[in-house]
Amino acid sequence: MTILFYELVGRDTSRPFSPHCWKIAMALAHKGLDRSSLPTRFLDVPRVEGGISKTVPVIRDGDRVVADSFAIGLYLDEAYPERPTLFAGDGGKAMARFIERWSQLTVHPYVTTAALLDIHAMQDDENAAYFRSSREQRFGKPLEAVTAARDAGLASFRAALEPLRSMLGYQPFIGGASPLYADYIVFGALQWARITSPYRLLDDSDIVAQWFERCLDLYDGLGRTVEAAAAAQGFGNRQ
Amino acid sequence: MTILFYELVGRDTSRPFSPHCWKIAMALAHKGLDRSSLPTRFLDVPRVEGGISKTVPVIRDGDRVVADSFAIGLYLDEAYPERPTLFAGDGGKAMARFIERWSQLTVHPYVTTAALLDIHAMQDDENAAYFRSSREQRFGKPLEAVTAARDAGLASFRAALEPLRSMLGYQPFIGGASPLYADYIVFGALQWARITSPYRLLDDSDIVAQWFERCLDLYDGLGRTVEAAAAAQGFGNRQ
Repeated sequence: MTILFYELVGRDTSRPFSPHCWKIAMALAHKGLDRSSLPTRFLDVPRVEGGISKTVPVIRDGDRVVADSFAIGLYLDEAYPERPTLFAGDGGKAMARFIERWSQLTVHPYVTTAALLDIHAMQDDENAAYFRSSREQRFGKPLEAVTAARDAGLASFRAALEPLRSMLGYQPFIGGASPLYADYIVFGALQWARITSPYRLLDDSDIVAQWFERCLDLYDGLGRTVEAAAAAQGFGNRQ
Repeated sequence: MTILFYELVGRDTSRPFSPHCWKIAMALAHKGLDRSSLPTRFLDVPRVEGGISKTVPVIRDGDRVVADSFAIGLYLDEAYPERPTLFAGDGGKAMARFIERWSQLTVHPYVTTAALLDIHAMQDDENAAYFRSSREQRFGKPLEAVTAARDAGLASFRAALEPLRSMLGYQPFIGGASPLYADYIVFGALQWARITSPYRLLDDSDIVAQWFERCLDLYDGLGRTVEAAAAAQGFGNRQ
């Protein structure tokens, strides 16, 4: 059975960029489940499956519609227990929530800072206007003023990844010897940055960058099927 | 079978204070295993089990000697699989390592800052001299200068707990509905602070403080068998 997968795109429907949608793209590949992508722009979200959610990803699996990336991950493991597990036990389910909160509160704010203007630039006119208005209301300042802080914040962002960096000295994936949903949580955040912005978050020599490359290699290079913004735009910042 | 448990103490052998030893005290109780505590001062560690480790905890379980708190946790689960699990699956084992690294890099440095002088004050003369010398070499400054930074660092320490705080909005323990070794990892760090120093790390209204109290209640209040330094010394800082 093919799972319908509503995922966020901008003007170019071939460049899905949402961190939360990338978690699910990887999770579906991990489970070996076929998906049919339904490219969804910001302003399309209220019409997804009758407005079931304010955000995507949303999936439809036959009669079942599930919203919220973490809930989708849990659903996939429960619905397809005979396929490779995303959590590897109840402990993994519980602790993946900690990692999700860590990623959301540590990685996401800085990626937002670094990529906000680039994400805006990926939208068509109507969605760009919505994005600017909603985000400027959220941040209380122009998009340009948010992104202006990215150089000043880079070193402390990199330092904040130290728990992940240190853990990678013990094992190749957050999931241990092989990746689990917890890896896709953090991968999604860095893939969001990779696809939306040429701004360089990590040094190549960083063990975190090497783990990210390993994640890009998974499932026949699924993550690489969308070219990096740096390559797509032909330039990058110099660190 | 009773497990021999080498745990760190100061002058008062009834007040074990090491964060890593508290992880194992909780883990042994979780597994329902009897322990025989062998109070160990800093300068006794090189003589523990023929100098097997530079640190405690160390356990002896019959013929098996295991050092390093995480390794002991893994050993206990493997050796006693019929008793309540500490990790709840391979995912839990892997992700507990992330939480261990997060706690070590986020919670431990600030507790060290806050409690360093108080830990020094708990030692007998010989161990106090060792502690001062080794820690001043590590920090490159007097103990007093380290602890002088605690007021200035308190707000950012509390902010750094946000992933744990946010996760506790989803579930009562890091382990989910009930505690796992990952809970004892972070509990150990806060219990270390509680036993060594009257300095108040958390507001009572903080959901993290409430989780810590739940951990103190576990196993007939095992964590409360050692009185808080604040109560023991009859004073506390005012926030």
